[in-house]
Amino acid sequence: MAKNLEISTLLDYYGMLLTDKQRETVEYYYDDDLSLGEIAENTGISRQGVRDSIKRSETILLEAEEKLGLIKKSGMLKESLAEIRKNIDTIDEKNMKVYRSDIINESIKSILNELKKLDEII
Amino acid sequence: MAKNLEISTLLDYYGMLLTDKQRETVEYYYDDDLSLGEIAENTGISRQGVRDSIKRSETILLEAEEKLGLIKKSGMLKESLAEIRKNIDTIDEKNMKVYRSDIINESIKSILNELKKLDEII
Repeated sequence: MAKNLEISTLLDYYGMLLTDKQRETVEYYYDDDLSLGEIAENTGISRQGVRDSIKRSETILLEAEEKLGLIKKSGMLKESLAEIRKNIDTIDEKNMKVYRSDIINESIKSILNELKKLDEII
Repeated sequence: MAKNLEISTLLDYYGMLLTDKQRETVEYYYDDDLSLGEIAENTGISRQGVRDSIKRSETILLEAEEKLGLIKKSGMLKESLAEIRKNIDTIDEKNMKVYRSDIINESIKSILNELKKLDEII
């Protein structure tokens, strides 16, 4: 069973779709880097039970991304927001150096504030 | 069983989490406004079977929103994007009327383009 960095990301997005027990097992394995034996000790499940639980959880997480595509969407959102931020910086620089418009400055501040909120949501 | 507009929205976001059969039944009921009897006829399931399938599907959809909150998130994203668009319009108007900067104009165009992309994603 190869440890997969991607599973940690899937857990961030879809961890809520697992049962508490499944999530605990997978988090031990992927986030805390415990061995199957250590997880078995911590949870009181057999080593094979831990392995099965992790396999089952991986399937649920991978299928969730296949069906809902949140990670893919999130990547696209982030790209667009980065592009918006870049262009806002351009406008800001031009305004600061040349026009010094308070109205433009206020609008830029509001936009940056919204971009910050968006970063927290996605 | 009260028909619920909200379920159509849930279907847009989480329909993929249902089996083909569940999705078919729920879409007949909520999107096409067929009666339980009509759906039973169309699908060859008993009327009670249709009712059970719809109930089960509703539970899956409602739990998905409870766990993943995509509809809530999407609402927040839309609000932020509307706020950004409003402020871009302000900058655009000021620039058009007063400064006529090509650089600002190009940046605004790029931002509007990204906002359009974002509308399609969320």
